[in-house]
Amino acid sequence: MATFELRLEQHSGVMKFELTKDFIARIRELIDDVADREIREIMEGLHPADIAETLDSLRDEEALFVYRLLDKEKAADVFIELSEEAREALAQSLTTKELAEEVIDRLDSDDAADFMNELPENVKEAIIASIEDEEVASDIIDLLTYQEGTAGALMAKELIRVNQNWTVGTCLREMRRQAEDIENIYTIYVVDDPGVLVGTLSLKKLLFSSSSTRSIIRDLYDRKALISVLPDTPAEEVAKMMEKYDLVVLPVVNDAGILLGRITIDDVVDVIRKEAEKDYQMASGLSEDVEESDSSWLIIRARLPWLLIGLLGGILVASVINLYEVELSIYPEMAFFIPLIAAMGGNVGVQSSAIIVQGLANKSISLSSTSQKLMKELGIALVNGVVLALLVLAYNLVFADSPALSYTVSLALLCVIVVASLFGTITPLVLNRFNIDPALATGPFITTANDIIGLFIYFLVGRMMYQHFEVAEHLTFL
Amino acid sequence: MATFELRLEQHSGVMKFELTKDFIARIRELIDDVADREIREIMEGLHPADIAETLDSLRDEEALFVYRLLDKEKAADVFIELSEEAREALAQSLTTKELAEEVIDRLDSDDAADFMNELPENVKEAIIASIEDEEVASDIIDLLTYQEGTAGALMAKELIRVNQNWTVGTCLREMRRQAEDIENIYTIYVVDDPGVLVGTLSLKKLLFSSSSTRSIIRDLYDRKALISVLPDTPAEEVAKMMEKYDLVVLPVVNDAGILLGRITIDDVVDVIRKEAEKDYQMASGLSEDVEESDSSWLIIRARLPWLLIGLLGGILVASVINLYEVELSIYPEMAFFIPLIAAMGGNVGVQSSAIIVQGLANKSISLSSTSQKLMKELGIALVNGVVLALLVLAYNLVFADSPALSYTVSLALLCVIVVASLFGTITPLVLNRFNIDPALATGPFITTANDIIGLFIYFLVGRMMYQHFEVAEHLTFL
Repeated sequence: MATFELRLEQHSGVMKFELTKDFIARIRELIDDVADREIREIMEGLHPADIAETLDSLRDEEALFVYRLLDKEKAADVFIELSEEAREALAQSLTTKELAEEVIDRLDSDDAADFMNELPENVKEAIIASIEDEEVASDIIDLLTYQEGTAGALMAKELIRVNQNWTVGTCLREMRRQAEDIENIYTIYVVDDPGVLVGTLSLKKLLFSSSSTRSIIRDLYDRKALISVLPDTPAEEVAKMMEKYDLVVLPVVNDAGILLGRITIDDVVDVIRKEAEKDYQMASGLSEDVEESDSSWLIIRARLPWLLIGLLGGILVASVINLYEVELSIYPEMAFFIPLIAAMGGNVGVQSSAIIVQGLANKSISLSSTSQKLMKELGIALVNGVVLALLVLAYNLVFADSPALSYTVSLALLCVIVVASLFGTITPLVLNRFNIDPALATGPFITTANDIIGLFIYFLVGRMMYQHFEVAEHLTFL
Repeated sequence: MATFELRLEQHSGVMKFELTKDFIARIRELIDDVADREIREIMEGLHPADIAETLDSLRDEEALFVYRLLDKEKAADVFIELSEEAREALAQSLTTKELAEEVIDRLDSDDAADFMNELPENVKEAIIASIEDEEVASDIIDLLTYQEGTAGALMAKELIRVNQNWTVGTCLREMRRQAEDIENIYTIYVVDDPGVLVGTLSLKKLLFSSSSTRSIIRDLYDRKALISVLPDTPAEEVAKMMEKYDLVVLPVVNDAGILLGRITIDDVVDVIRKEAEKDYQMASGLSEDVEESDSSWLIIRARLPWLLIGLLGGILVASVINLYEVELSIYPEMAFFIPLIAAMGGNVGVQSSAIIVQGLANKSISLSSTSQKLMKELGIALVNGVVLALLVLAYNLVFADSPALSYTVSLALLCVIVVASLFGTITPLVLNRFNIDPALATGPFITTANDIIGLFIYFLVGRMMYQHFEVAEHLTFL
């Protein structure tokens, strides 16, 4: 039934796979019936990424059963698309030889190295020892030396490299040999004798150039300023460059300019998403990259740190309010607006920080000085603060009995908004200056700090205001 | 000086442009000196994206001056990379004819249509009337019919289309003609006589196939299940598909399967980033996509809505606490922990929502039922809740005088964490069911709702606890 639906959709020119409970149930049934042929048939019509999604939803032994039925070439692609948990389980059921020959050897070098990095040291060594193709083994060993989160760890070794002194004929012959392992060519890299990247030659140019096969590459290739990165360039910077310059592929060279590998856009899309998600998680109080489908234990671990900081902050705030116990017992209505003051301080602070954090992340932040930024923020805070303070004042003067409380809340709110805005603006800038992730500013520290500062201001204003009104009342009595 | 630095960097194989205040000051000097030659020389060495970044930082009339000095072909690329504000200002200084001939005609159809969409209707029509190339005009008119945020609005008309009945020779000749306007070919699309997309032919295969120029394309092309989208497929879905299937280019077909255009990954990277940023902005309380460099007015408008909701929430919370004024005047120390209870409820709720929101956005959410998700969340909440409640209990028993208050805070905290967790989990799922953006759940409504529920629980527990302790004290007196 599932295959039928798929075929139907393909017919109209649009292939669309949606993982449903029914589909999983059907696959499970087929596994129970050991219906190898049917499973093979269904899997043949699916993209490796869809098969991986299906295996992720099966139990480990079921996934292994289906995996062993896959076409060998496709199996490697499925393997690398699996969730880390499912891949780990599957890897444990496969022999070192199977992993070396049927997975590693068939993967692109970057994917192979990524997977190897998930393995314990001894397994890693055993697999490398089992790889028969020496070039593959040395490529992987080389890639494993680069640190995670750098251009080196993102790059693949597979690329088309031609010497500028070759003729078009030699170039085509050599390219045919090199292209065997490469799915998408994108660009032909032109190097000089020592291997320094000197330019690129587009496949289009090679295909359409009317030059004979005896022309020399030197006379054909594009010398335009080449954009490249070093192996230790941070992954985020690589992502920003590829995004900014609309690149599909980016060469990696060493300090001497020698071509080492290439980074393709599909690997960078992950970096871009992960980067954006990291900021989101930070702003939502998650300390690790967790998903809803992760184990409860992992989720608890990701959530507890911020909650602990929040708890500590709450206790600190309690001690601040404690300082004003006398005022509170005389004017218990002051307690009513504690949450409002705390919440508004936190909200304003997070807003201010988020704008700066995103500006820093996108490199879209203006060249204005910090003091100019603060002046602008002050203006914005004053407008928002006055609007909100007047609104709550109007409400309180109508519905609350105490004018002292009414003026206190509004004046404190205005102060809190201004202070939280400036604090929220400056914190990510300072963190960034010290090379600390500015996104921390939208996390627990700022909201807690704003709670404390905000309530301190509130009670300070409150004390003054009540004294003022008491004196005023006293005077009217005279 | 700037050119010198750039050259120096290029020499080591790595081109890197960084927009500095010094660079802008130098360009301004050159503009004041009307030093056309120097400006041209500097701009020649820069990538269009870097030139655009530079123009964004100049005043409108300065940007216009530099823009007019640019090489015509490059100018169009710079134009489309400008910030929307700078582009609008520049467009107003250019004549309709200039826009039509020097910008629109030189841009890819998708970029041209994107720009046209920024213009008022009458200007749009005037420009279309000024386009001399009829094919360009009709492509743009066609692209303008697709709604923003759909595959149709993302696609470009430029692609290589060959008929399956052509010989390789005809194919090469036709491709050479079609490829003139196309920077990156990526894939050759094979269609049948009515224009229905039937498969693809890789440039690699065409280049390396040993077939003679008389072979028929039908015998060469790849019939593997083609992944394609319809013009009304939402942009986010396009992004998810390209990311999942690691695609660099994706064909767009109509209901009949006729090939309409192609979407390239660089346009989709923007969609992916914007999508991720939207969630972040929602979680940070910004109602619009604002940047630090935007006008103060725009930023105020983006920030005020959430603050107004927060204010309203704060007033509601104040009325809830008001219900317990009697308790508060007897036990004013209950006010100390109001911020802690409110903050923890908000934090836990946002955490729970964020995990679900991200799962929905990535389609990585598990297939488990809602009740299974809630049971899992309950377990997580109980663990975190018990840990936090015990910690604050230990603190309060040591440092606070009132055992009633100590037990109240801990019991209320546990209840609040459980309720906020479940509430935070269910809300985005419900919003999603009703096709409302689930990211709303991490925004103002949830935090405010959690404040209200949390403090309601706190005072309810407090009232019971104090009654219990009073009865107990009373009993010991007897």
